[in-house]
Amino acid sequence: MDFRGAHIISVQQFQRSDVERIFSVADSMEPFARRKQVSKALDGAILGNMFFEPSTRTRVSFGCAFNMLGGHVRETAEAGASSITKGESLYDTARVISGYSDIIVMRHPRAGSVAEFAEASRVPVINGGDGVNEHPSQALLDLYTIRKELESRQRNIDGMRIGMVGDLKHGRTVHSLSRLLRLYRDITFNLISPKQLRMTAEIVSELRQAGHTVIETEDMARGLHDNDTIYLTRIQEERFASRLEADVYRGRFRLNQAIYTRHCQPNTVIMHPMPRDTRAEANELDEDLNQHPNLAIFRQADNGVLVRMALFALVLDVVDQAPRQVQEAGWYTGRRFE
Amino acid sequence: MDFRGAHIISVQQFQRSDVERIFSVADSMEPFARRKQVSKALDGAILGNMFFEPSTRTRVSFGCAFNMLGGHVRETAEAGASSITKGESLYDTARVISGYSDIIVMRHPRAGSVAEFAEASRVPVINGGDGVNEHPSQALLDLYTIRKELESRQRNIDGMRIGMVGDLKHGRTVHSLSRLLRLYRDITFNLISPKQLRMTAEIVSELRQAGHTVIETEDMARGLHDNDTIYLTRIQEERFASRLEADVYRGRFRLNQAIYTRHCQPNTVIMHPMPRDTRAEANELDEDLNQHPNLAIFRQADNGVLVRMALFALVLDVVDQAPRQVQEAGWYTGRRFE
Amino acid sequence: MDFRGAHIISVQQFQRSDVERIFSVADSMEPFARRKQVSKALDGAILGNMFFEPSTRTRVSFGCAFNMLGGHVRETAEAGASSITKGESLYDTARVISGYSDIIVMRHPRAGSVAEFAEASRVPVINGGDGVNEHPSQALLDLYTIRKELESRQRNIDGMRIGMVGDLKHGRTVHSLSRLLRLYRDITFNLISPKQLRMTAEIVSELRQAGHTVIETEDMARGLHDNDTIYLTRIQEERFASRLEADVYRGRFRLNQAIYTRHCQPNTVIMHPMPRDTRAEANELDEDLNQHPNLAIFRQADNGVLVRMALFALVLDVVDQAPRQVQEAGWYTGRRFE
Repeated sequence: MDFRGAHIISVQQFQRSDVERIFSVADSMEPFARRKQVSKALDGAILGNMFFEPSTRTRVSFGCAFNMLGGHVRETAEAGASSITKGESLYDTARVISGYSDIIVMRHPRAGSVAEFAEASRVPVINGGDGVNEHPSQALLDLYTIRKELESRQRNIDGMRIGMVGDLKHGRTVHSLSRLLRLYRDITFNLISPKQLRMTAEIVSELRQAGHTVIETEDMARGLHDNDTIYLTRIQEERFASRLEADVYRGRFRLNQAIYTRHCQPNTVIMHPMPRDTRAEANELDEDLNQHPNLAIFRQADNGVLVRMALFALVLDVVDQAPRQVQEAGWYTGRRFE
Repeated sequence: MDFRGAHIISVQQFQRSDVERIFSVADSMEPFARRKQVSKALDGAILGNMFFEPSTRTRVSFGCAFNMLGGHVRETAEAGASSITKGESLYDTARVISGYSDIIVMRHPRAGSVAEFAEASRVPVINGGDGVNEHPSQALLDLYTIRKELESRQRNIDGMRIGMVGDLKHGRTVHSLSRLLRLYRDITFNLISPKQLRMTAEIVSELRQAGHTVIETEDMARGLHDNDTIYLTRIQEERFASRLEADVYRGRFRLNQAIYTRHCQPNTVIMHPMPRDTRAEANELDEDLNQHPNLAIFRQADNGVLVRMALFALVLDVVDQAPRQVQEAGWYTGRRFE
Repeated sequence: MDFRGAHIISVQQFQRSDVERIFSVADSMEPFARRKQVSKALDGAILGNMFFEPSTRTRVSFGCAFNMLGGHVRETAEAGASSITKGESLYDTARVISGYSDIIVMRHPRAGSVAEFAEASRVPVINGGDGVNEHPSQALLDLYTIRKELESRQRNIDGMRIGMVGDLKHGRTVHSLSRLLRLYRDITFNLISPKQLRMTAEIVSELRQAGHTVIETEDMARGLHDNDTIYLTRIQEERFASRLEADVYRGRFRLNQAIYTRHCQPNTVIMHPMPRDTRAEANELDEDLNQHPNLAIFRQADNGVLVRMALFALVLDVVDQAPRQVQEAGWYTGRRFE
């Protein structure tokens, strides 16, 4: 695809070559994200960071990514404050707000809203999450993390085995990640979930048609034992008939140090889309793994900045300028990646 | 007036020459707003964008205007979060906050609050809307739009005919716009509203004393037929005795493609202060006009950035520096004004 | 202490020499805060201004201080919007958010939360207030103000007499200020409060052990008459058995022009942590003193920017660069310190 001036709405718009282009640009953003250098490629540009649903982390991640390329950020985080609640159409909002900035990131609770907004916008729009539908930068950072983690272990995405655990029916992140992985070759999906929360038949069928292996199981031990990466998601109690039933499942779809050591191969990467719920009644990924070298969840979050910088640089066509318009970071940056 | 260091609180503080000065500076801001060039005239300056009442669009418009001149923006959008709610006086708030920034834009729900705040402020204050009272940058962008739209049709503000439609009694925007138009010559005001929502007698009398023609009517067809510009506002159902009565009026004070074609002269400019309520029960300006070349509502919004840049440049005295401290915009800006 | 890369969590971490270092750096920030010059020392750096509890003034003060050194500010002001409310641990939040920025200011309603957050953070953290516990930049700006006010009156902190008035039991600011003053020599504390709201025994004992004089009284007249500075705080009605009792105390622990003139020495500096409650039923510091030259409360707020700039410059190690990477402020700054 031609990224220049494009909207980034869905993972479905990417070919494998597009994904690889994004990742190669993300790699080139490392010196800026690690604060060794400051880029001025977007000096004077303005991001409209429009969050019509709260999401501190995603909002700040996009904003920082834009700042790291030298741009200004204007934003909203006020769910109820928008004119949208006063009966304004998304068309009007888009036409107006796109007159203020050079690019927009939009998050909105309604599925399809960002695509509708983008159609009326006069500047490129990046989907920051539209309800149950899509959150493409999350899927990209997940896959980018897999690529990086596997490469450092001398493996590749092609031929990899991934275990997905938890609520695979409602989880937006596992859906989008699966659709990106589909672009690669010969992947084994170990889908581990209660029967009620199985991956949608549509996605399973898409993956099989693309030549991948899909194994569905309710047995955590069986699903965990043969993976390069496991990707955990939250088990949502409210999906079950009773708390008692939820308790049963909760106990069976958690990962902690003991379960990891017993069932996973020693080098298995552990991922989670965050936030993880560390309250006792949830705790799908135990904090006793916090110091484990294979726990990649914080590297995942760091990678989000790189991937978002890459999207901005590609869409605004400053990939080549980013490494040229630089200066050294003159302040203390020593503790960052200790 | 001397704009340098001045507070911008009310349209009543302007002479015609002041308005024309603002518009001429706004014209000179085009290259920055269209992202052909980046200005650094306010590099290092700080705007305190203090919104004590939600208004995403106005807040972001002011913030972007300041960024386009190179400045930083610090802001609040938290209605209830301010110390004002803890019993702090506006005097104290103004004295403190004016120590943080170089200029303040303030929006507040109470009429008169911004003037009171400005009196205690140690930096210039621009009124971003004080309740039912004033919103001078809106009136200026409305008039600037009229000027631009008429000029592109080889007409002038002097001698123009404007139709104002809807709730003319409570509409802050039509009041302020009328008071700016009063500074010009020989204007015909076609004031179209239900009897209950007529323009205040005070303003009608001011306009007539200044030599303008004011025609008041409840008859939409009659009011529409002889204008250069029509300015629509929302009919507020809650002002009527019953929903039934409101229904009657609602049907009579709407504009859509059919009504426009039947009653307006072919080149009549269509304006609205936005947001327009596109829900079926309101819909004072129908979306079937969205592609109409005379629909100026989105150009109106774009002009808001120019006018706000002009106010910042005038008050902070960087009008001459803005076009000198520039660099080319290095990123993709192609879709903006397609 | 070595400020480079350090967390600033508590006034207890400072020696007298540290406080004096901060103040001397704060002095050097004057040309930037007064907008004579613009510093680019932090050009490209990013502050994560994370306010998980509303505090417009403190948030904006930190943000402006960072802007005045040339840096970007990303922030949150959404109390309930954070993942923290979805069961995320402070550890996770800190690990993730510290990947986005170069330094974090954090405010949070729970005592101890900022220290916990800092432990997991990969970048330096400054405590912007953690509930009833600490707000070190407030204590520093209070003491910095005392130093400046006394110096302009040819006095010093050593040997000074300070009257603290109001709720000395619960007031976070008087506790922290006392602990900073303890580092100096031979100070007389006149602690003026109702019996129920006396300074905690622990702090009184610390002060006495350090060789200072502590006089506790319920008698406003007696407490006021022999001070270089008086520091007022709010009397909190809700602490008393009845409104009637509160009324009695309220009347006795207020300062206004008449009381000041009758009981204070002519050159006594008047301070207050702000916001002051100017409603009739509170009004601990009357507005009839607003024009009094010894009223230092607005200078206090201004000093907050200097002290926060100093903390950023010290922790990010750009103290020497700040005055070198400058340009002249090119815009109108005339009204600021009239």
